[in-house]
Amino acid sequence: MFEKFYSERIKNTPSSFIREILKVTQSPDIISFAGGLPNPISFPQEELKISMNRIADKYGSKIYQYSTTLGLDSLRQYIVDRYKKLWGMNITIDNVIITTGSQQALDLIGKVFVNEGDNVMVEKPSYLGLLQSFCLFKANFVTTKLNEDGLDIEDLKNTLKLHKPKVAYLIPNFQNPTGLTYTKENREKVFECIKDEDMILIQDDPYGELRFEDNERIPYIGMNQSDKNIYLGSFSKIVTPGMRLGYIIAHKEIIKELETAKQASDLHSNIFGQYLISDYLYNNDLDKHIEKIKALYKSQAKAMTGAMEEYFPKTVKFTYPKGGMFTWVTLEEGKDVLTLFDKAINKKVAFVPGHPFYVNPDKVNTLRLNYTNADSETIKEGIMRLSEALKEI
Amino acid sequence: MFEKFYSERIKNTPSSFIREILKVTQSPDIISFAGGLPNPISFPQEELKISMNRIADKYGSKIYQYSTTLGLDSLRQYIVDRYKKLWGMNITIDNVIITTGSQQALDLIGKVFVNEGDNVMVEKPSYLGLLQSFCLFKANFVTTKLNEDGLDIEDLKNTLKLHKPKVAYLIPNFQNPTGLTYTKENREKVFECIKDEDMILIQDDPYGELRFEDNERIPYIGMNQSDKNIYLGSFSKIVTPGMRLGYIIAHKEIIKELETAKQASDLHSNIFGQYLISDYLYNNDLDKHIEKIKALYKSQAKAMTGAMEEYFPKTVKFTYPKGGMFTWVTLEEGKDVLTLFDKAINKKVAFVPGHPFYVNPDKVNTLRLNYTNADSETIKEGIMRLSEALKEI
Repeated sequence: MFEKFYSERIKNTPSSFIREILKVTQSPDIISFAGGLPNPISFPQEELKISMNRIADKYGSKIYQYSTTLGLDSLRQYIVDRYKKLWGMNITIDNVIITTGSQQALDLIGKVFVNEGDNVMVEKPSYLGLLQSFCLFKANFVTTKLNEDGLDIEDLKNTLKLHKPKVAYLIPNFQNPTGLTYTKENREKVFECIKDEDMILIQDDPYGELRFEDNERIPYIGMNQSDKNIYLGSFSKIVTPGMRLGYIIAHKEIIKELETAKQASDLHSNIFGQYLISDYLYNNDLDKHIEKIKALYKSQAKAMTGAMEEYFPKTVKFTYPKGGMFTWVTLEEGKDVLTLFDKAINKKVAFVPGHPFYVNPDKVNTLRLNYTNADSETIKEGIMRLSEALKEI
Repeated sequence: MFEKFYSERIKNTPSSFIREILKVTQSPDIISFAGGLPNPISFPQEELKISMNRIADKYGSKIYQYSTTLGLDSLRQYIVDRYKKLWGMNITIDNVIITTGSQQALDLIGKVFVNEGDNVMVEKPSYLGLLQSFCLFKANFVTTKLNEDGLDIEDLKNTLKLHKPKVAYLIPNFQNPTGLTYTKENREKVFECIKDEDMILIQDDPYGELRFEDNERIPYIGMNQSDKNIYLGSFSKIVTPGMRLGYIIAHKEIIKELETAKQASDLHSNIFGQYLISDYLYNNDLDKHIEKIKALYKSQAKAMTGAMEEYFPKTVKFTYPKGGMFTWVTLEEGKDVLTLFDKAINKKVAFVPGHPFYVNPDKVNTLRLNYTNADSETIKEGIMRLSEALKEI
């Protein structure tokens, strides 16, 4: 009815495939591995209640008033201090802008960098939220192969040479959807390949703090060696997603452009939430809280991979995540994951078919499983149901 | 340094003129009429503190978890009920999407409707946030003249005929920046002109509830008579702006497209804030609260127009707002408002020069004054200072 009024960009944006999936999966008798929800145990509810009362008493009307586009200084300072401590990054608050969740970080970066038709390099598969976001800016996606240890270097070289991407978007830690992590060696090789390219490198890292296997923290690609690096982070997976608070770390000139884009997008992010999270972070031990989340997710991940080992046919492959929230399952070549989806829904278990994670989904035989939002018993039961469905395709 | 990477759209977005202005005006000895801040008295702090504790106890982890893109059902239902009561609108929650402030409403509408070069009709002058937002979508702005009683009908007819705008953006109540309101008769004439046009009409109304002169509520243009009408509203001026909560009311097919755009923009608005404001609204008398704000703003507006009558030279014209937060001052033809701005800063008083409110600012002799964020004594003192500055240009 309003078709003639709609913009080209919205007509080209992929329909809400995953939203439709999630609707099917909301029935209470379905075990759903389809979402990407953190376990509610990762929300420090008692501490947040203390903090909200404290900020109401301490800051009065300020927590309700308009505020600055870049975000609350104390929160930006916390991020600066943490990245200095963890990574030795030489940054100040001028390198940080608070965003309305990481999803807005993608929107702002798209606004600032992506002209119609610009080549944007993404992993195959990549995060569906990025594909959707940059689709609005009519990016031309080019893909590069993702292996067990990170990017396929030969394929990367070819992609760079052939497409000269202006922007690359990578998720080096516990990637969404695959759960894969780039090794240290792979990151070094990737940086060797890209360091002389005219290319902005975005490293999205919502899950990096949630490494539950091995204790090694692996530095970002080209960390502290490139002005063209942009880092995304978020409080969604380690404190609360409901506040919609993420951040971008970048060169301060880039931050200025992002500020202009953000002013036009939502003026600033919820300031109450910024005061709340800032107060929580300065008055509690975040690392201790993260340890709890990690222990939980580790047991949940093990429950899932253990059950898959036990019940899945050997022809079905899956990843062993070392952190984060997802594992990625690959069916035998030629099997159709949408057929499996229908069978699985009949058996009362749900997942996300691989489609929305590909630029050109075609003969998709992959699927994403989330393990963070069900207990180990439920996970085992869900995997058993899924293995029954697998027998029917 | 990063110039070659930036998008065309961000290069064309007006630099942060008003942000620079606000920096100059933040010195504590300056009386500033430059901002657009609600008076902190408009924040029901005690009631919000009660509500935040109540929702923490009542809803537990839900107030911290990911939520739906369209927004919290109870908050959408409150909006439906209020617009039914006030305006007899025949709507359901399917006609409502919650946005991260009204600024995001503009961003989403731009994404859904505006192709590069599309003609968008705005008042002359118009809200700078809209100009900045749609600039990112490379809209081609066409302007239509705003008079004391609303749009100049002859000029409107010419603009429609000449430019066939695809989208119109109007602020019929206590417009920002001018403080002007369209009369009932004017609204009817405007609708007569536009009703057969192929044009989406956006009516932005952040201040409509703040009518402090006359008690008449004037219906929107073409209200309940057009599927192409889109209404914007906000809790910023009547409860709190810091939560960044606004909304769009539109045909449900349009809401679906806006939902896709919002999913790509920030997934959803802060859900804690939505629970908080919803709880506040259902447990308090909003109309009673608004009466308090109106009484305050009325006295502040009178203090400002009264002082301008007393101290300004008769050659200087200004509007008498019947609500909202601003008055608009016009200097004698040929006078330069930037010269006045410099003189005023020397006298320790600040305002926003008219420039950012025009599509093509040229020989600007207008300025915006905000009266909601200073007490009557301070307003008088500021206007006296400004009248001294006026003598020097």
